[in-house]
Amino acid sequence: MENFTYKNSTEIRFGTDRIDNEIHDAVAQFGDKVLLVYGGQSIKKSGLYDRVIDQLADLQITELSGIEPNPKINSIREGQKLAKENDIDVILAVGGGSVIDASKVIASAKFYDSDPWDLVVQANGADRMKLDQVPLVDILTLSATGTEMNFGSVISNPETHQKLGTSGPNSPAISFLDPTLTYTVSKWQTAAGSMDIMSHLIEQYFNHTTTNDASSGMIEGLMRSVIKWAPVALKEPENYDARANLMWTATMALNGIVRSGNEGGWTVHGLEHELSAYYDITHGVGLGILTPRWMDWVIATEPKTVARFAQFGRQVWNIQGKDDTEVAQAAIKTTYDWISSLGFPMTLPGVDIKDETNFEAMAEGAIKSSALDKVAYVPVHKEDAISIYRASM
Amino acid sequence: MENFTYKNSTEIRFGTDRIDNEIHDAVAQFGDKVLLVYGGQSIKKSGLYDRVIDQLADLQITELSGIEPNPKINSIREGQKLAKENDIDVILAVGGGSVIDASKVIASAKFYDSDPWDLVVQANGADRMKLDQVPLVDILTLSATGTEMNFGSVISNPETHQKLGTSGPNSPAISFLDPTLTYTVSKWQTAAGSMDIMSHLIEQYFNHTTTNDASSGMIEGLMRSVIKWAPVALKEPENYDARANLMWTATMALNGIVRSGNEGGWTVHGLEHELSAYYDITHGVGLGILTPRWMDWVIATEPKTVARFAQFGRQVWNIQGKDDTEVAQAAIKTTYDWISSLGFPMTLPGVDIKDETNFEAMAEGAIKSSALDKVAYVPVHKEDAISIYRASM
Repeated sequence: MENFTYKNSTEIRFGTDRIDNEIHDAVAQFGDKVLLVYGGQSIKKSGLYDRVIDQLADLQITELSGIEPNPKINSIREGQKLAKENDIDVILAVGGGSVIDASKVIASAKFYDSDPWDLVVQANGADRMKLDQVPLVDILTLSATGTEMNFGSVISNPETHQKLGTSGPNSPAISFLDPTLTYTVSKWQTAAGSMDIMSHLIEQYFNHTTTNDASSGMIEGLMRSVIKWAPVALKEPENYDARANLMWTATMALNGIVRSGNEGGWTVHGLEHELSAYYDITHGVGLGILTPRWMDWVIATEPKTVARFAQFGRQVWNIQGKDDTEVAQAAIKTTYDWISSLGFPMTLPGVDIKDETNFEAMAEGAIKSSALDKVAYVPVHKEDAISIYRASM
Repeated sequence: MENFTYKNSTEIRFGTDRIDNEIHDAVAQFGDKVLLVYGGQSIKKSGLYDRVIDQLADLQITELSGIEPNPKINSIREGQKLAKENDIDVILAVGGGSVIDASKVIASAKFYDSDPWDLVVQANGADRMKLDQVPLVDILTLSATGTEMNFGSVISNPETHQKLGTSGPNSPAISFLDPTLTYTVSKWQTAAGSMDIMSHLIEQYFNHTTTNDASSGMIEGLMRSVIKWAPVALKEPENYDARANLMWTATMALNGIVRSGNEGGWTVHGLEHELSAYYDITHGVGLGILTPRWMDWVIATEPKTVARFAQFGRQVWNIQGKDDTEVAQAAIKTTYDWISSLGFPMTLPGVDIKDETNFEAMAEGAIKSSALDKVAYVPVHKEDAISIYRASM
C-alpha cells in the first residue's frame, strides 16, 4: 500500500426535496454576484431552471448557457469574460459533468489574465494550483463523471484535437445530489453515464498496488451497485433506488477515496479521450467499446494479470470456475455482455468511425497526454494502442 | 436510500516516513501553544515521544498524559484546566482512540466554563455544536475506533457507571496514519481493535435501509479486508500490508461514508458500552463476545432478517449453501469462529463477569442511552438485552 494524502471538503447534500429549501442560502453565503452555468434547454423544459431562479430572486445572476458535452475551451473563455466583467462571487453550475467541469476552470480563470487554455495545458507559466478559485455550488443532473466531489475537469480544444484533464486546488463547496433530477435522463445518456462510472472503477481497480484490500473491496462493492442498478434505471427511469445508487456510486467512484493507497492504472480513459477529441462521440460510449478490448489485450500481453481478473470475476460477477484463467476469461466476456446489454453499439463503426485514418495520431496522442507507456496497468505503447483501436472495429 | 448530508474535512496523511518531516508545520500552522495529549509510557518506550518533542522544540508544549482506555471524564476536566490556563492554540493527540476521543472533548471544553461532563450528557444547557473547538492534530497508534476521521468521542464516568457518546462540530484537522507505529501493538489490542473495526462495519451493515447497495458493497469489501488481515497482523506484527489495511479500513469504517444514505442500526455497541461502564473491560473484547449472540437473537426474533444475513454470508464470507437460512446460519457460525480465532475469551466469565448481578441495570442503561428499542436493527427491549447478556455466559 502506497503513502497518500486525502482531504476533500465538498459538502454533499443528497436526496429529494432539498434544493427548493436550501439552494438560496447555499449560494448566497458566498456573495450575491452569481454566475449561473448550464447547458441547453433541458433544465428549462424540466422546470429546474425556474425553480432555481425563483429561489435566487434577490441575487444578481449572470448566465452562461450552452455548455456542450465534452466541454469546449471556448465556453471557458466566455465564462472567464463574464466572471471578470461581473466580478462574480460564486458559480452555480446546474447540469452534468460537462457543466461542472467547465465551471471549475472558469472559477480559476477569473483570476487569470490570459487565455484559459493555458490553465488546462499548464502553458506560459499558468498554474491553477496557485490561483484563487471562485466557490462553486452545483446541482447535478447526470450520474456519471464524479466531478461533483473532486478537483478535476476534462476540457476539449477542437482546433488542436486535444481533450485534456486539469485539476484545481478546490473541489466544489457544495453539491446537491437529487436522484429525481435524473429521472428524465435519456436511455442513451443513462447507459453512457453508467459505463463511465463502471470505467472509473475498473481503471482504479486494475492498478499497480496488489495489497490494498480496503480499496479493492470498496471498488468491488461499488461495481456490483452499478451492475445491478444501471439496467433497472434503463427499464424504469423513475425508480428512485436505481437512480440513487447510480448517483452516489458515481460520486464515490471518483472522489479520491477508492484510489487512496494505490499507484497507477487508468488506460482506457486515455485511449477514449482521443476518440472523443477526434470524433466528439459520447465519452461513456467510447469507454464501453474500448474496455473489453483493452481487457482482452491485457491478459494476452501480461499473463500475471490473470489473478486480478479472476478476483474481479469472483467478487464482482460472482463467477465460479475451475481455475483463474477460466474465471478471468468469463469475467471479460460477462463485462462485454453487460455493456452490450445497456444498448451500446459495441464497435467503432457503430459510432461512425469507419476507418483507421486517425488511429496512429490518436495512439500517439493517448500515450503522450496520459503517459500510457508509464503509468497504465500494463504499459501501452503506440502499436498496442493501435491494436486496441483495431480490435474495436 | 435516505437523504443525507456528508462533509468531512479531515486531512489524512497516510504512510511511512511522514511524521518527522511534517509534524512541525502541521501543528505550528495553528499556533505555538500546544497541548500534547497521550496515554501511558508506550510512546516513550517506542521513541515516538522523543521524535515528536524534537520536532516541536520551538513551540510551547503543555503535557497531559495518563489518558486511560475507556477515557474518563476526570482526564477531560484536567485537560480543560490546562487548555484554559495555557490558552492553547492546538491539541496534538498521540495515541489510540481513547487519547483522540478525550482530546476532542477537551478541544470543546476550553470554551466551556463549567464541568465538561455537561458537554457529554448535554446537561445544563451545554451544547458542543455551538462552542468553538481548538484544532486537533493527531498521530494514531492503534487501528480501531475510526475517531481519527470523525466527529465523535466516547467518554466514561465511573461514578455514574455511564459510558456515553458525544459529537462536536469538527473532526480532526490532520490525522497522521503511519502503520509502522502499530507494529508494537500487543496481540490482545490488535485483536480487540480488529474486532472494533469489524463491529463498526456490522453495526452499519445491519440497518433499516435495504436498497443502498453502494453502502452495502463498500462495507462488504471493508469487512473482507479486516477478516483477511487481522490474523496476519497477529501472526506477523510487522507485516506492513496487514497493518496498513487494518489502519485504513478502521478509518473508512467510521468516517461517515459507509453509513451515508442508511438509517438505524447499531445495537451491540450500546450493549457493550454497559459492559465497559460496569466492568471496564476492553471494548473490542466485549464486542467480540456479544456480536455472535446478538446475531443468533436477531434471526430467531425476526426471520425477515435471514436474507440480509445470507447476503453477508455470500459476499463477506464466500459461503455457498442450499438456501438463505443455511447460508445465514453458517455466516453467524463463521463470524463466531473468526472472532474466536483472534484469541478472545468468548464468554463473559472469560473476562471475569461471573454473575448476572448487573444485567438488569445494564439492559436498562443500554436501551436508555442508545435507544435500542427504537433505532436498533431489530428493536431490543429490556428482556431481549438481558437474554443476549445471558447467552454470553
